[in-house]
Amino acid sequence: MSRSVLYMSMSLDGFIAGPNDEPGNPGGDDFMRLHQWYGFALDAGPTAETTNGSGIGKQFLDEINETGAVLAGRNTVEQVDHWGGDHHDGVPIFVPSHRPPGTSVANYPLVTYVADGIVSAMSQAKAAAGDRDVLVHGAYTAQTALEADVLDELQIHQVPVLFGSGRRLFDVLPTRVELEIIRVIDTPEATHIRYRIVR
Amino acid sequence: MSRSVLYMSMSLDGFIAGPNDEPGNPGGDDFMRLHQWYGFALDAGPTAETTNGSGIGKQFLDEINETGAVLAGRNTVEQVDHWGGDHHDGVPIFVPSHRPPGTSVANYPLVTYVADGIVSAMSQAKAAAGDRDVLVHGAYTAQTALEADVLDELQIHQVPVLFGSGRRLFDVLPTRVELEIIRVIDTPEATHIRYRIVR
Repeated sequence: MSRSVLYMSMSLDGFIAGPNDEPGNPGGDDFMRLHQWYGFALDAGPTAETTNGSGIGKQFLDEINETGAVLAGRNTVEQVDHWGGDHHDGVPIFVPSHRPPGTSVANYPLVTYVADGIVSAMSQAKAAAGDRDVLVHGAYTAQTALEADVLDELQIHQVPVLFGSGRRLFDVLPTRVELEIIRVIDTPEATHIRYRIVR
Repeated sequence: MSRSVLYMSMSLDGFIAGPNDEPGNPGGDDFMRLHQWYGFALDAGPTAETTNGSGIGKQFLDEINETGAVLAGRNTVEQVDHWGGDHHDGVPIFVPSHRPPGTSVANYPLVTYVADGIVSAMSQAKAAAGDRDVLVHGAYTAQTALEADVLDELQIHQVPVLFGSGRRLFDVLPTRVELEIIRVIDTPEATHIRYRIVR
């Protein structure tokens, strides 16, 4: 049974991006502080093979790489130009957006812009994922998915830092959402908490 | 060696009070959702003796009751009229505020309003606490204590709920603050994380 799972690294004060988050400065100032826990080697790209430390980075990258589709917000995908057209293993990428895609997307057959809303985008992502999970990314996308009740789980990597300012994962939601804690992994670099959304 | 420790229950989206937080509605709408994890019996007051469930509520109340002084924000203390003048065991209560206290305070010899700022208030609280810790309460007070660098630790009780709106523990801070995770207690009702502030 496919689940939609939001994966986000967040500071204790709720920020998932630093100030000045824009193309050319993806994730804003000092964004990598929120992702140090992966343990990427400094001289290599962020892949499962380059992580070190406690091994928790590799564990989560492996988990992410097992998902069968990606649903990510336009802000997220444009900052990294759609991961060059392939997030991992050739799985399809869905981007909910009312505006037409930029020109690069014509070169990316795995990327689909969905103009008729988050419910439709999630439905297409779940169909594409089959019995695998859908990886969800992005703050605005998370909020719209919560509002539309199409998000199943949250995997929060809570990083021991107060960022002070930037972009929040959860800004203001129209309703309260009850959660169930289903897994806590305690490491020195981050507290990894997985929640199920209670319906 | 006395430490100043902020104890706060917080939703995953960072709220420590619901909407409409004001005298007569302390903590705002549905405030008790953030404190259910204590396990208070519904027909009794919130004391260590009335907790049930996992026992974690009693553990934290015992920890709080071992502190040697209280430093709390004016908003916090006025909503509960200074806990009737005694938070626990007759320890002194310090309230940083530039305005003179309300009339009830004349009846509370343990309560001291400190007009010359958070650094002075913390210094008086630590002196009063001796080798015991100082219990810190309140969102605005936490932020000013962080800014003035007089806070030593954070004990966050992170509750599995998205509150959606209300009052945040950490609004916007002027600087980044690095933390060290020193204890994680994983229970179904809340994730209890203790942080040391890295200087």
